[in-house]
Amino acid sequence: MTRRAAGEQLHLNVNILPSGSHPAAWRSKHGVSRGFIDISLYQQIGRIAERGKLDAIFLADTLALPSGVIASGPTWSLDPVVILTSVAAVTEHIGLIGTASATFHNPWTLARTFLSLDHASGGRAGWNMVTTSEPSSAFNFGDQPLPPKAHRYARAAEFVELVKALWNGWADDALVADTASGVFADPARITAPDFHGDYFDVAGPLALPRSPQGQPLLVQAGGSPEGRDLAARHADALFNAQLTLTGAQRYYRDIKNRAREYGRDPGTIAVLPGAEITVGESTADAWARKNELDDLIPRAVRLQNFAARIGIPVQHLSWDEPIPADFRDAVTEHSFGFASAFRDLNDEERLPVGELIRRGGGVHRTLVGSPTDIADSLEEWFEEEGADGFNVNIDVFPEGLERFVDLAVPELQRRGLFRREYAQSTLRQRYANSAVLPV
Amino acid sequence: MTRRAAGEQLHLNVNILPSGSHPAAWRSKHGVSRGFIDISLYQQIGRIAERGKLDAIFLADTLALPSGVIASGPTWSLDPVVILTSVAAVTEHIGLIGTASATFHNPWTLARTFLSLDHASGGRAGWNMVTTSEPSSAFNFGDQPLPPKAHRYARAAEFVELVKALWNGWADDALVADTASGVFADPARITAPDFHGDYFDVAGPLALPRSPQGQPLLVQAGGSPEGRDLAARHADALFNAQLTLTGAQRYYRDIKNRAREYGRDPGTIAVLPGAEITVGESTADAWARKNELDDLIPRAVRLQNFAARIGIPVQHLSWDEPIPADFRDAVTEHSFGFASAFRDLNDEERLPVGELIRRGGGVHRTLVGSPTDIADSLEEWFEEEGADGFNVNIDVFPEGLERFVDLAVPELQRRGLFRREYAQSTLRQRYANSAVLPV
Repeated sequence: MTRRAAGEQLHLNVNILPSGSHPAAWRSKHGVSRGFIDISLYQQIGRIAERGKLDAIFLADTLALPSGVIASGPTWSLDPVVILTSVAAVTEHIGLIGTASATFHNPWTLARTFLSLDHASGGRAGWNMVTTSEPSSAFNFGDQPLPPKAHRYARAAEFVELVKALWNGWADDALVADTASGVFADPARITAPDFHGDYFDVAGPLALPRSPQGQPLLVQAGGSPEGRDLAARHADALFNAQLTLTGAQRYYRDIKNRAREYGRDPGTIAVLPGAEITVGESTADAWARKNELDDLIPRAVRLQNFAARIGIPVQHLSWDEPIPADFRDAVTEHSFGFASAFRDLNDEERLPVGELIRRGGGVHRTLVGSPTDIADSLEEWFEEEGADGFNVNIDVFPEGLERFVDLAVPELQRRGLFRREYAQSTLRQRYANSAVLPV
Repeated sequence: MTRRAAGEQLHLNVNILPSGSHPAAWRSKHGVSRGFIDISLYQQIGRIAERGKLDAIFLADTLALPSGVIASGPTWSLDPVVILTSVAAVTEHIGLIGTASATFHNPWTLARTFLSLDHASGGRAGWNMVTTSEPSSAFNFGDQPLPPKAHRYARAAEFVELVKALWNGWADDALVADTASGVFADPARITAPDFHGDYFDVAGPLALPRSPQGQPLLVQAGGSPEGRDLAARHADALFNAQLTLTGAQRYYRDIKNRAREYGRDPGTIAVLPGAEITVGESTADAWARKNELDDLIPRAVRLQNFAARIGIPVQHLSWDEPIPADFRDAVTEHSFGFASAFRDLNDEERLPVGELIRRGGGVHRTLVGSPTDIADSLEEWFEEEGADGFNVNIDVFPEGLERFVDLAVPELQRRGLFRREYAQSTLRQRYANSAVLPV
């Protein structure tokens, strides 16, 4: 029986990069050039996503101004919590997932902030825990370089345990609020973590009860073995950057197996590959849009950006040829997940560099096509156990999201692959309905 | 010439304690018992404050659950930034001032968060910088006790300089956003602080341009000499806890003189004493409300809370007698400002303890009366150079604020002491109109 026939449905989050995921988004006639500081754009995105019954909006985070690319467009935004709170105020259902770094934030403050957002939104908050791989970020938080990955993940493991303990400090009946007797809260029903670890000493508790969904959704983007391990222990949903179905299936099985080893039901952890989606009325219409956007950036610049990202000197790359075999292992991206997914793609297909760039340059899988094309591709990965849903990147906001919601979502709904209404009131309840098939 | 005749007007902020400033607020029939986690209450408060043309709402912050008082009512709230952002989304004019600690936060993150709120609100954000005097907070941020005051203020001095440098990193023309040429930003017009001090190393810059008001308003509540000094150097507005006009005038002159010594126009720093205001149709009506609220808490409990706050064993206090002279110097409150203002009041009037408690127990000056009573008192402090405005505490939200806006504000407007419309679009422009008289 197919997953669809078993009544399973996709999860769809939309990843908000300020202007859109296409590097020329801010220059597009469909976009908003100063959208990264325009709160009304973010609110509009939230409203469109809610109209499309999507699970959540998702915000990445950048803890340093990326000096190399600043001249060419924004890859960063306002503080994610400010954006998510602003969207919460004008929506009712859409989930609100924000990224925050366990390497550079503080667990008491972070736990309070996300639990506050969860209260303010009626149970729609999620925390995407990252460990920060971008080296220059470290110098905004001290004079030491980025700690080695093993340290970052050891710290993150403590961090997440601590945050969960803080979120769960108040028993559900700790808040009494009995106006007649004058008893407001019952200190005996509030547990302080009193945590003392290798990285943190935090007494606690928070001054906040549990939220309408208990606690914020916990999300991760684990690519490396350390990241996958931490995610398998704690995460409710997991983003990845797989570019091939084979790679996605391998990742999917690995995560579900790790979750099982930690005694978890593998169905309680949703695996969501990224997908850059440009949808049109027809395949040709979609490609026309994609080409129009691509053409805003000269080919030489795109080649240079691609070379810089994958860590291979540009003089060794040619638009019409595959990456020379000598450089196969030279791909270095900051993120393990992006680099290994890209190597999978490169090994499997040996595409010319220009085609690799057209397919998103190794950042996320790029889908360009009609509603049927898009739905076919998403359905394939879902049915073939490469994904429980997708973290969708939109080429240009807000109009690219309207296309996705008005063209692709109805096709998914028609196939029974996506909800037509919000049935659950909190984000956590929505994600509790993740993949339940044995793997 | 009076200040009123010179066209000067008061500033009025409303201090949001979650249920209201009266300890029984959450139990009152006028209040909301679980209001501290109810975002719609905060939004309602913001809307009422805007209807009253107030300058700003103001949120204190607490970095630890105050275990001693938790049973009796909430003295804390959600994360101030989440509240202020939620209010921003449903209002257009009201200023949004939030407290954050220079002792326990991180300058890069804090600078980004407040500048983000400033962008999201169209130039209405303010940061109230505190150094945290509550000892148990320290154990939510490590295993060391609260640093000595001198260290906290030395750190705060670095912190505020750094935050200002981060807020001002982008020249006003650094954001180009030229869709035709594809130039998004001009790195040459962005300055990284590259700060290396005794407490912080922060490279910067932020990934955000200056806001519609340039940068968030900088607010402080300096009571101690160290706090006053820092405020005189940096603050746009200053809260205090003066209980007598003589004390308020002394404070006012001190701050204006210190500002002048730092080369500032003393008119650019607004001094705003706290005032707990219960207003009624008549004096008797206001007192009936005040007594009704007071009576919700047994006299023995009020006496005990008062004794605990001022640091004198309860057995030495009697409701109908003044504080014994032996204990005059024993008043210890955590905050220097509260303690010294309270000593002024106690020395000047030698009131019985019960009367001290009725007058707010030494936290903020308590005004109970008709619109005329309230306006007379505020006007006196304004004209006598004890205040440029007030940080108003409301007994019970939301209804106590509606009374203030519907009864007291119109009387102040009738006297020409308060604005009838918002003339400026940003909070900073509003505060630029502070006291301009020579002092």
